[in-house]
Amino acid sequence: MGREVTLTRVYHFSAAHELANPALSRAANAALYGACHRPHGHNYYLEVSVAGVPDPVTGMAVDLAALDTQVERLVLDEVDHRKLEDAPALARVITTGEGLARAFWRVLARVVEPTGSLRRVSVVETAKNRFEYRGESE
Amino acid sequence: MGREVTLTRVYHFSAAHELANPALSRAANAALYGACHRPHGHNYYLEVSVAGVPDPVTGMAVDLAALDTQVERLVLDEVDHRKLEDAPALARVITTGEGLARAFWRVLARVVEPTGSLRRVSVVETAKNRFEYRGESE
Amino acid sequence: MGREVTLTRVYHFSAAHELANPALSRAANAALYGACHRPHGHNYYLEVSVAGVPDPVTGMAVDLAALDTQVERLVLDEVDHRKLEDAPALARVITTGEGLARAFWRVLARVVEPTGSLRRVSVVETAKNRFEYRGESE
Amino acid sequence: MGREVTLTRVYHFSAAHELANPALSRAANAALYGACHRPHGHNYYLEVSVAGVPDPVTGMAVDLAALDTQVERLVLDEVDHRKLEDAPALARVITTGEGLARAFWRVLARVVEPTGSLRRVSVVETAKNRFEYRGESE
Amino acid sequence: MGREVTLTRVYHFSAAHELANPALSRAANAALYGACHRPHGHNYYLEVSVAGVPDPVTGMAVDLAALDTQVERLVLDEVDHRKLEDAPALARVITTGEGLARAFWRVLARVVEPTGSLRRVSVVETAKNRFEYRGESE
Amino acid sequence: MGREVTLTRVYHFSAAHELANPALSRAANAALYGACHRPHGHNYYLEVSVAGVPDPVTGMAVDLAALDTQVERLVLDEVDHRKLEDAPALARVITTGEGLARAFWRVLARVVEPTGSLRRVSVVETAKNRFEYRGESE
Repeated sequence: MGREVTLTRVYHFSAAHELANPALSRAANAALYGACHRPHGHNYYLEVSVAGVPDPVTGMAVDLAALDTQVERLVLDEVDHRKLEDAPALARVITTGEGLARAFWRVLARVVEPTGSLRRVSVVETAKNRFEYRGESE
Repeated sequence: MGREVTLTRVYHFSAAHELANPALSRAANAALYGACHRPHGHNYYLEVSVAGVPDPVTGMAVDLAALDTQVERLVLDEVDHRKLEDAPALARVITTGEGLARAFWRVLARVVEPTGSLRRVSVVETAKNRFEYRGESE
Repeated sequence: MGREVTLTRVYHFSAAHELANPALSRAANAALYGACHRPHGHNYYLEVSVAGVPDPVTGMAVDLAALDTQVERLVLDEVDHRKLEDAPALARVITTGEGLARAFWRVLARVVEPTGSLRRVSVVETAKNRFEYRGESE
Repeated sequence: MGREVTLTRVYHFSAAHELANPALSRAANAALYGACHRPHGHNYYLEVSVAGVPDPVTGMAVDLAALDTQVERLVLDEVDHRKLEDAPALARVITTGEGLARAFWRVLARVVEPTGSLRRVSVVETAKNRFEYRGESE
Repeated sequence: MGREVTLTRVYHFSAAHELANPALSRAANAALYGACHRPHGHNYYLEVSVAGVPDPVTGMAVDLAALDTQVERLVLDEVDHRKLEDAPALARVITTGEGLARAFWRVLARVVEPTGSLRRVSVVETAKNRFEYRGESE
Repeated sequence: MGREVTLTRVYHFSAAHELANPALSRAANAALYGACHRPHGHNYYLEVSVAGVPDPVTGMAVDLAALDTQVERLVLDEVDHRKLEDAPALARVITTGEGLARAFWRVLARVVEPTGSLRRVSVVETAKNRFEYRGESE
């Protein structure tokens, strides 16, 4: 792992959401999530960190164009200017920052291999809250 | 006006919205507003600029605690962690940045007098879009 | 002017430049501009402020899609990932922040009318330097 | 004024302060200023806006090196890494943001003429509070 | 550790401080700490990183309300709008960024367990200086 | 390693560059690097992370003044307000973010020992792209 460089690429999307576990009553969800149970939204930043050994010919460790294409197709097209609870990619996911970070990791881990090794997916919900996931095998 | 200092105070709220004119059809709204017609949301920043001549005893031009109380009661409690279209304070307002800036100005202009003169209301929707309103009499 | 809202839209480009007046000698330019005489570059932010009365049907004061199209065609395509001295749109312009702000204003003032009234063009060169131009008739 | 460009230059200093009017009792100051009566401090940003018509030979409206020298000598050397109440330049000034903006304006207005026309002095106390002063003759 | 998500929560406080080791002479402290020996202050950001496996019912890995309560009671109430050298929680601590990060870690490590596992405490003193501590057992 | 604190110090430089492998044809470089093959530039941030156990006498883990001196001499003087391809310190380096992070690491690793242990060198090229290198032995 010693000669690897890690690239972190920052993406943005604006989405609505409302925290609720569909197995719980409306009152139980309101008690559990407080104001976050009401419909609201965020300007989310998604930070994808991918590592690789720089190619001696190109000087690049990661195929950034390929990464952008995958993130746009698999994540941003699903969630940008949408309600997160309506996104098929997030079916059965409670849309906490924790839930989003793990869901985006799972979607990206399957396809990012040719562009580098996925190391971290971070979801920045507000200037005060950041959620990081590094996968199940760490 | 010469000796006045202008204070700009920055507030934050997270809200959902979807752009639509209720007088138009769903298809017309979709054509008009594009992706913004779908439910989505933002971390909004509301910047309220108030001017006054500093009081020689206190060194302050604006009663910041009073301003905070008014903005919280009249704006933030109405919109934070809510869908903007559900806020009574925004009834009959299309929730564009332009619409929000004017609506918040009107609400604040009535009450801010004792704390200083309202000079500008800015709504920052994303890092790329800022909307400023300076009132009807400029 | 009283009912107008001002939209500020933020654009980004990365460019190289080197300050020099071609009428001066190399030594004179080096003395005049110091380190800025050497080739270097910036992540520039271009902020375009356009004002208009919100349309009662759409709630929008400015046609943002049209503004984006014009700025991309007339400014960003000319300067992004280029050396500013090579851009035809900047012929005979010394590429100081002052020069860029006025040059971008002139290019945009001709075309922005249908999307709103151009009010200000700001060029942010670094986190420490911002240049604003409001046109010749202020 | 029509052909002028305005440069805003951003400076930084870290200072301690405590709000108090020396003519008042300790209890009166505590009641007036609340937590701000206790010794605390900030990373202040000082934004100095100076306007001028760009020189046709240099492309510059403002002599930035001269401006930096004046601001460093007259302001930053007085307040950086100091307690504001100990700075001779702030004698008899209550160190509110309003007081600082006016005090820095007065100091700079006397000397900035050869580098351009002083237009605005802004003091950014925290991410939530900004104070602007445009002089007595506006 | 594989399924854990790490939440980083950002807090803010404004404080005065002056670097000095009470065992040294005034001249020795001045020589050692330079300008930082003089009373000054900062807008500090405190970033607390806590990890946990998301609860399948709530989708949350960390009890954010409990974390906020602990950080406010044990840290912010002690240091916000105060001189750091006066805070009982910082007795015998030289208030460098290194000292603050370790002191805040020790205070939080004792109580954060029910809300998740403390992973990192970062103190951001200025835009140029960040200090991170990950505890003694790493 | 348990009692170490990590300091991250942020530096800034403005530079021009153009991506090209001199072993390839102009057309091959244009195909490989796209717009980045053209001369352009950035406001780069260089973040240097150094770890150490805080000295019980000074409370400091890192000699910050010594670190600044080394980074200025070995990196900033080489690249600030220059074209990266002209910097002797970057001879035979393709100036991708990956290449810069590794080159700056190698330069600093040789000299940073007396000021602490070098842990990470990050190059922030734009608000969207960050490159991190942690050395060959991790």
